[in-house]
Parts: sequence; C-alpha cells; structure tokens
Amino acid sequence: MNLESLNRMFYPKGVAVIGASANPKKMGYHALKSLMNSHFKGCIYLVNPKHAELFGLKAYSSITDVPDPVDLAVVAVPSTQAPSVIAECGKRGIAGAVLITAGFREADIEEGLKLHEQLAAEARRANVRIIGPNTFGFVNLHADLNAGFTPAFSALRKGPISLISQSGGVCHVLMPYAIEQNIGFSKIVGLGNRINVDFQDMLDYLTLDAETKSIALYVEGVDNLEELMAAAKRTAKVKPVIAYKTGRSKAADQASWSHTGSLAGSYQLYKTAFKQAGVLTVDDCIELVSAAKVLALQPPAKGRRVAVISLVAGLGIIAADTCENQGLTLAKFTLKTEKELKRLLPPYTIRTNPVDLGFVANNPDTCGSAIEAAASDENVDVIVLNYIYSWSEGFLELPVKWIVNAFKTHGKPLVMCLRYPKGVWDVEKQKLEDNGVPTLPTPELAAKSLARLCEYGEVLEKLSKC
Amino acid sequence: MNLESLNRMFYPKGVAVIGASANPKKMGYHALKSLMNSHFKGCIYLVNPKHAELFGLKAYSSITDVPDPVDLAVVAVPSTQAPSVIAECGKRGIAGAVLITAGFREADIEEGLKLHEQLAAEARRANVRIIGPNTFGFVNLHADLNAGFTPAFSALRKGPISLISQSGGVCHVLMPYAIEQNIGFSKIVGLGNRINVDFQDMLDYLTLDAETKSIALYVEGVDNLEELMAAAKRTAKVKPVIAYKTGRSKAADQASWSHTGSLAGSYQLYKTAFKQAGVLTVDDCIELVSAAKVLALQPPAKGRRVAVISLVAGLGIIAADTCENQGLTLAKFTLKTEKELKRLLPPYTIRTNPVDLGFVANNPDTCGSAIEAAASDENVDVIVLNYIYSWSEGFLELPVKWIVNAFKTHGKPLVMCLRYPKGVWDVEKQKLEDNGVPTLPTPELAAKSLARLCEYGEVLEKLSKC
Repeated sequence: MNLESLNRMFYPKGVAVIGASANPKKMGYHALKSLMNSHFKGCIYLVNPKHAELFGLKAYSSITDVPDPVDLAVVAVPSTQAPSVIAECGKRGIAGAVLITAGFREADIEEGLKLHEQLAAEARRANVRIIGPNTFGFVNLHADLNAGFTPAFSALRKGPISLISQSGGVCHVLMPYAIEQNIGFSKIVGLGNRINVDFQDMLDYLTLDAETKSIALYVEGVDNLEELMAAAKRTAKVKPVIAYKTGRSKAADQASWSHTGSLAGSYQLYKTAFKQAGVLTVDDCIELVSAAKVLALQPPAKGRRVAVISLVAGLGIIAADTCENQGLTLAKFTLKTEKELKRLLPPYTIRTNPVDLGFVANNPDTCGSAIEAAASDENVDVIVLNYIYSWSEGFLELPVKWIVNAFKTHGKPLVMCLRYPKGVWDVEKQKLEDNGVPTLPTPELAAKSLARLCEYGEVLEKLSKC
Repeated sequence: MNLESLNRMFYPKGVAVIGASANPKKMGYHALKSLMNSHFKGCIYLVNPKHAELFGLKAYSSITDVPDPVDLAVVAVPSTQAPSVIAECGKRGIAGAVLITAGFREADIEEGLKLHEQLAAEARRANVRIIGPNTFGFVNLHADLNAGFTPAFSALRKGPISLISQSGGVCHVLMPYAIEQNIGFSKIVGLGNRINVDFQDMLDYLTLDAETKSIALYVEGVDNLEELMAAAKRTAKVKPVIAYKTGRSKAADQASWSHTGSLAGSYQLYKTAFKQAGVLTVDDCIELVSAAKVLALQPPAKGRRVAVISLVAGLGIIAADTCENQGLTLAKFTLKTEKELKRLLPPYTIRTNPVDLGFVANNPDTCGSAIEAAASDENVDVIVLNYIYSWSEGFLELPVKWIVNAFKTHGKPLVMCLRYPKGVWDVEKQKLEDNGVPTLPTPELAAKSLARLCEYGEVLEKLSKC
C-alpha cells in the first residue's frame, strides 16, 4: 500500500500543479515549467483559483475539480494553506504530493511547528504521501517526469543511479557535473523535511525498483536512525547503498537542525550504524556520485588484490597509492602473467604492477593483450585502468574491444580513469559504459570507487550470514 | 646565467624541432604540430636530415645549419642520437632543449644508464639545459608557446598558475579539467627524468616570473630533497607553493623509480620536509589545481575563523563540515552582524553561521547586504560562499557586485563554490575571477582550497621569522 502509493507518485498517469502560476517570481511558475518541459507523456493539470487559464491551458479552481487520471500533486502554495490542500488531495484520491512550500518545522518559530503538526495530521487522515515540505521536488528520468522546480534536471541522462538527498543543494551541485560527465540517473529526490516519506520509505521502494541499480544517500540527520538502518540493511542485501553523511561539525549540526528539522547527531554514531547495516560511505559529493555509478554498473568484488594498468606511469602511481590508501593491495602477478607482460612490453617500461603501457600506446592490440593478461591472472581480483588522451591524431587508440572483452570474460570489477579534451573519445566512453565498464575523470576517483566495490563484496558476504 | 638560460627557453625568439617528421606515428610529428598550432609568434625551424622540406617548410639537415634566432630545441630523435644532438645544440648556442625521447636512466637496462650518463656529460659540456628526457615537454601560455607533443594544451587560458610535474600524465589529466573550468595557466612543465633541470631550478626561475602567482608541484621523488626544500623555502617567501606527493605505497614507489629514475622515498619524510619549507600539500590532483587557483588569486589569510554563506543550506553544512575538518573554526558573529542578519533575513531561515540565503535568493541586494555584513565582521577572517543555479529564469541572480565589493573592501580571502548548467553564469563567473574571486565547482573544494590560504598565511608568518 505504502509502496504502491510511492509507485503511483513516481510513475503517475496524471500530475496536477497546485499553485501553478504565470509569475516567474513564484515557485508555482517554475514547478509548472519544469513539468511542462520534461516531455512527460501523462496528463498535466493546473490548479489556480485566481485564473481560468494559464499559458493557454485551463486552470482549475480546486484540485477537487480536476478530472482523472491524477496520481501526483506538485504543491506550491503559502504554508498556511498547505494542510487544507493536502486534505483536498486526499479527498480527490491522489496518492502523493511534492510539497515545495517551506516554513514548517524547519522554521524556528512557533507558528511553523504548529503548521507542521497540522500538516502531518492532515496527511495521515487523508492518506497522502508527501515528499517535502521545503523541497525542490523530484525527477524520475525513466518516466520523463520532472516534479520539481528546476527544469535543468530534465537534461540528465536516463540511467541506473537513484539519489535520495536531504538537501536539494547537493542535487543541484551534482546535476551539472552529471550532465557534463554523462552520468545517468533513475530517480533524484529531495526529501526536504520528511513529513511522511523518509529515507527508509525510499529505500524500501527503490529496493523493488528495477530501474535503480545503486542508491546514493545524502544524509544530514534523521529522527529514527534504527528504522533507517533496518531498511538500509534490507536494501543492501539486494543492491548497493552508499551514503554521504554531513553535520559532523557542531555548527553544521545546528544548521542542519534548522535546515531539515532533525538534529544531525554524532557523526561517529552514524558511521558505525552505516557500517553495521552494510551502507558504504564517502566524504565528498563527487565521490558519492562516482561510487554510485561504479556500483550500478559493476559486480561486487571478490577480493582486494588490484592490478593497475596505465597508459602513463604517473597515473598508475597515483592509482596504486590511492588503492593502497583505501585498503587494497597491489596484486603480485603469476609467473605466467609476468612472462606474458615481458613478451608484450619493451624492457624500458614498467612491466610489473602498476603496469605502464606508455611505450606501446600506438598498438591497441598490444595494450589489449597486456590488459587481458592482467585481468585473467588468478592473483587479480579487481582492475584499475588509466587512459589519458594526448595527440590529436588517432595515434593513441583506445583498445575498447579488449577492455570490454576482458571485463565480460573474467567478470572482475574493472574501473577506468578516462580523461580527454571534449569530444575526442565520447563514442568510446559510451561504448565502454554501455558494456558495463564505468569511466571516471581522475585516477583517484577510479581507485576510490573501485574500493567501494571491494567493500560491497564484503558487505554481501557479511549480510548473507545474518 | 642558469635562470637566463631558462628564460630564453620559456620565452624563445626561435624554436627548432629536431627530428621533425611528417609521419603521425612519430613524436617529431606531434611536437611540430603542437608548436605550429600554438600561435607562437617567433621563428620555427625544422631539422630532419632525410627531408629537404616538410609541410611546405624548409627542413635543415642539422641544427648547426639553422639561422638565428634560435633559443630552444624540441628534440625527438632515437635515444642513441640524443647526446650528439645536445652537443650540437651547445655549439649552435642554443640555451636549452626539450628532450621528448625516452630510454635513459628510467629504462631498467644497462644501455639506458650508460646513455643517461653520456647525455648528462654532453649537456654539462655543451652548457645546454634539458627539460626531460622522457617528457611531453612544456607550454608557456604567456608566450603562446607549446613546446610539447600535445596540441590540446594550447587551448588552455593564459593565467597565473604554473604547474611543474614529474608526470606528464598528471598534466594531461588536469588539462581537460582546466579547459572545462576555464582555469588559466602560466607554465606547465613535464620535468621527465630531470637530467639538469629539476624542481629547484624551476622554483628559482618561477620565483622571479611575474606571470606566475602560484606554483603547483606534482612530485614522485627527487635525488636531492634538501636542495628542493631550500629552493622551495626561498620561493614560498615570495609566492605560494603547493605540492601533491605520491609514491606512498611500496609498489608505487618502485614504479616511480622506473618512471623517473628516482626513488620516491618515505612519504612521511617528504611531508615533514614540505611543512618545514612552507610548501602546502594536497592528496588529489583536482585539489592541487583548485588550491593553486585560489592561492594565485587571493591574499593569504590572517586567521582561521570562517564565515560560511550559502544560497542553500545543504551546501553550507558541507562547507562548514569541511572547514572544521580542515582545522578552521566557524566564526561567532558580533552582535552587530547578528542584528543585521536578523534585519535582512526572515525568521524561518538560518541566520547564524553558516548563513542560509535561500529565502531571499530572489533579492540579490539582500543577499549582498548579508554577505557584506559577514565580510565586515571583525570576528571573520575568511569567507566561503556557496551558490548553485536552480531556475531557468533570472529569478536567482548572482550578487556579483556585492561579492566583488566585499572582497575588495575588506581584503579577506573569499572563495566561492559556484555550480550551474553550462552557459548560465559564465559571464558572472569570469567577472568574479577577473576581480580576484575564485570559483570552484563543489563546496568541498571551495572549503579545502580556502584552508590552504589559511595555511599560507601561517607559512608567511613563520618564514618571516627565519
């Protein structure tokens, strides 16, 4: 029932914008614009009692007048009107609402607290699920649905990552990065003040969502850590969950309270709880989305012995350093692999781990054979591959076929650092990622994200025993 | 004399490409192409004994035949020919050479070691400075000079950062990032195997270079740490030096030896030496260039009390967390500032540090006044400002004038996280940076780079006493 409501919200047949407006100074304008520009195939209804028409579309005076089908309401009305609007949504049989409006529990004033309680009571009575209040909304790329106030989210590629965030700001910082890096998303949700849709609800829902392969969380603080951890544990058995927890500093903790109405609480407590529940963690928003990408595309690792292979020695050294710093060990190749690398590579290059392909860069088949040799080595569990672009001509080719083949044949996690001036290797990058080989823009990000795959392998093993 | 040679190399009147080639499989082709495409205003000479003409340009059979002016040679010949070519360069009065050729000390073979010694002896005799061997070369954006084998470096913007790297790969990873982020560079140098131009030489030279405001180092390992540290200390008194040291892991250390012919040595030893010399450090290549950018544009900080101001609370919480984690403290505002913030901002937003401007985002003057209030506070030493873009309309304006004015009036370091979909705020970003306010794409990078400014302020104070 719970999950069915969420499913109706994320895949609605019809959406109503309550408080739709033609005034760009109003949230209701941006919500309407986001929805209309998102190529949503379902019905769109406008609700505004002051206008009969907006942008040439009929505007209804109340949500109760809106015809079928309507599963989701995006609400941008003054906070004092929010409880009655939610009550009306319930009468109308709407499954859920995005409540953009702010000024509830997070507002450090008596009135806000009262409104919050009123809203919570109405939502319970009306059986309406609320994402928010005080949220930018959400997007579901797989439904071409932008149920928020930021049109630019619709420019994201469809993909396997879902991001559940206690801060809309974090979503807005990651969005342009993800567009640049062509990272694909499933759902991006700004939870806001979580009146009745919290992290645990989203985790339970996304566990069953076939279009979500990994789940990234941005967490400041929750009311019920135990509930969150129980849900996270259920999810982690099925698909990887990775979290970025802030509110570590005292000042940030207090700010977080004002921001989301929850005290962030002890960072260390959360860290420990996450670990027990099998939730992976990072300490940077770019690392969050990078790890989520790798976790979505790649199988969990079966061990921590890494082979590092690079087109340039320096990047191999950085990756090796980062891997060891993340608790991985540089694999000792078997004699067979050693022999093969000696056969393939000239004596003046690095033929041990980390392997340097620099002097055979002009021969993608030789590079590919070296990659295959390392990937097939029984002492190797995971692989980092570093490629940068240098010449403007086709001299430096990417052995894409070899890389994909090595990944598919041996099934060992393989993460690439792939960096190039815009346009040069876009097709190759897409081919790699379509075949399950994720690329990241720095050797540090590649190595750190690979380390999360090793951790997830260990999480699955541990959780299978509980 | 030493520095004069380097100056002739970096600002040459004429450049010869020895081993120039029309064959895209040869380094001499890419070196020639890089130089010809770099809008270099000086003379370009081609040397190739097998051809009288290449690309319609005269090719000389030997460097000794090349007429004046020629200050720099870019050399891409087989390693066995390198010593005699360097000898000829000396006879011809050429100040220095970029030696792209590899296969010397880094080649783990007897022949390579012998060649290395021979080359070193010839260079000494001939009084020729060599950048390399085994290098991609260098670029000097201020001379429109690309003396390397990668044409794409010429697409970088002219700017105040110089990067001296023991790995060409690191330069190639950072280059596309810097182009995307519009980060300006002065010199980028791949030191290669440092036959007679080492980090200390570059530091001494760049200390006097008016077009370099900050110096970023990528270091794997050097032969003479003491000499490097002495030079770094001289430089750090004049302009900031920031280093990324790798070769931490044993495997990476060994690889580094093969790569550059120097044992990386104890990471901790380097860290301590860097600290004593006043060299700042980072552990990530993106952090290296981010900090270098901030250090180039901003004055050193006079204290560690930070004001965090954000358009969205979540980014303020991340920045506050990162600042505290980096050893900064969240400033306690004076009563005057507290009063002013209460006057400017509504009660339901965060009016303490970190300050949340979210609910006045549509009023850039109110945002600006709040920024001014915090910047003028006597309890505030440094400022982090976080802005993300949300609506597609002009609703969310950037208070650029206020920000620039606050920075110029109070002279306190001010770093911005500014993130937006491509194109939206490019003009504003440029205006901010032209006025000395650096922008970075995440709150973590903004906070970490600001912390380097605090450290540099302390370095200057310490060094002034020695």
